[in-house]
Amino acid sequence: MSDVRRLSLNQATVQHLDVAQAADLCVRHAIPAIGLWRGPVADAGLSSAAATVRAAGLHVSSLCRGGFFTHADPAARAAALADNRAAIREAAQLQADTLVLVSGGLVPGSRDIGLARRLIADAIAELVPAAQELGVRLAVEALHPVFCADRCVISRLGEAVDLALQFPADAVGVVVDTYHVWWDAQAGADIARAAGRIASYQLSDWILPLPAQTLLGRGHIGDGHIDFAPISAAVAAAGYAGYIEVEIFNQEIWDAPPDDTAATVQQRYAALPG
Amino acid sequence: MSDVRRLSLNQATVQHLDVAQAADLCVRHAIPAIGLWRGPVADAGLSSAAATVRAAGLHVSSLCRGGFFTHADPAARAAALADNRAAIREAAQLQADTLVLVSGGLVPGSRDIGLARRLIADAIAELVPAAQELGVRLAVEALHPVFCADRCVISRLGEAVDLALQFPADAVGVVVDTYHVWWDAQAGADIARAAGRIASYQLSDWILPLPAQTLLGRGHIGDGHIDFAPISAAVAAAGYAGYIEVEIFNQEIWDAPPDDTAATVQQRYAALPG
Repeated sequence: MSDVRRLSLNQATVQHLDVAQAADLCVRHAIPAIGLWRGPVADAGLSSAAATVRAAGLHVSSLCRGGFFTHADPAARAAALADNRAAIREAAQLQADTLVLVSGGLVPGSRDIGLARRLIADAIAELVPAAQELGVRLAVEALHPVFCADRCVISRLGEAVDLALQFPADAVGVVVDTYHVWWDAQAGADIARAAGRIASYQLSDWILPLPAQTLLGRGHIGDGHIDFAPISAAVAAAGYAGYIEVEIFNQEIWDAPPDDTAATVQQRYAALPG
Repeated sequence: MSDVRRLSLNQATVQHLDVAQAADLCVRHAIPAIGLWRGPVADAGLSSAAATVRAAGLHVSSLCRGGFFTHADPAARAAALADNRAAIREAAQLQADTLVLVSGGLVPGSRDIGLARRLIADAIAELVPAAQELGVRLAVEALHPVFCADRCVISRLGEAVDLALQFPADAVGVVVDTYHVWWDAQAGADIARAAGRIASYQLSDWILPLPAQTLLGRGHIGDGHIDFAPISAAVAAAGYAGYIEVEIFNQEIWDAPPDDTAATVQQRYAALPG
């Protein structure tokens, strides 16, 4: 059995709830932490959102998300950096454990994947001082290669680790997300390499067939093809003792009653080997 | 400009044509080689298919495909091995440069990806003597990780190379397929590691959005996001001097007049840096 005191519900799993509703849901289901998204936080107002989750007694395990650094155009690049600096300030005020970075796909109009990767490393280097000043840890997320062209050219955990290792450990870590890394024969070795760098551990399952919107092809733990136990064991062996977020993008789950979703999240998580 | 004397049309690109029609198409468009599929070859009759392509003066750059080894059930496993032995005999009679292996996804009812990978290595070991006896080279194909669960747990070229290196080079090589490997930051290094092991080089482009049937999301060269030049340069630097196949799964292209498709294949290929 997993330790439910480490469970966090990522707000994206209950897409239609605002911050207050999502916080109430966590409280009703004895889920002690929440992963927040910048959109609903902005809708609630940053101070109000921070007060709401604090009053609910919830820990904020992550803020999603910064990133989208892959602009060659100077104005677009400056705007992305400014937006990420804002995200760092928001993460600080929310006392989030980490700010998740989805780094961006190919540069618009370009097929140069190396260029995109260099722009990402450069952008993170520019953000590190701001992150350190406010005590916010950035978390580089590798996305499944199916998202390489349009969302994130950091396609393997190993690449995220290589990136993070260029910076101080308190400033830059990585996300381990089962959905994105389960297929990778090197995932276990890369999780070990990430010791001291794991800033977030997220769970969802790989289900088939893929839906028309590829982004929404995630399932509840146990509904798909992922063997969670070895990944969780590797994450634990690498020293990660933080919250474990369930983050599911799935239209059917979004359309379900949120209390049903939270109950399923809780049950499926608890039933994992711990 | 690429050398059109090295171009091969994979039959899957003109899905609705039988072997004789596909061979005629290649001749009409001065495409000197063809990649055949076992289904249409069986429809034509093996001897007749072999005679047809030979009479047309075409080289057979590959036979697609063997594989699907990931069965734990002994009867299913024996059937898969028997089918692969038949495929080896067919490849020999067609004088194909290689028999492409799509290794199979997770074992039915299992989430143990390590088990699936072990079953693949074991199956290839069993097939190597038959392949050597008939002078057929097997080509392990890594499929894009989006196909990991249901089609091929060999998700990176590096894994395919690791597998091939366990066996004699004349018996087991790898396929480099741009569609499957373009996203991988290690692809260049793994192509270099594959020197002397590249048995097939296949081209198609990664287009977005993905179609409802994930398998059919390939495009003509230049219609998508892949930078072909560095991959082709790495393949050439690794010593591969064989045919270069264009293999596209795409409903729109299948529905187009085959002569238009062949002309586009020819033009787009020729325009690549060579």
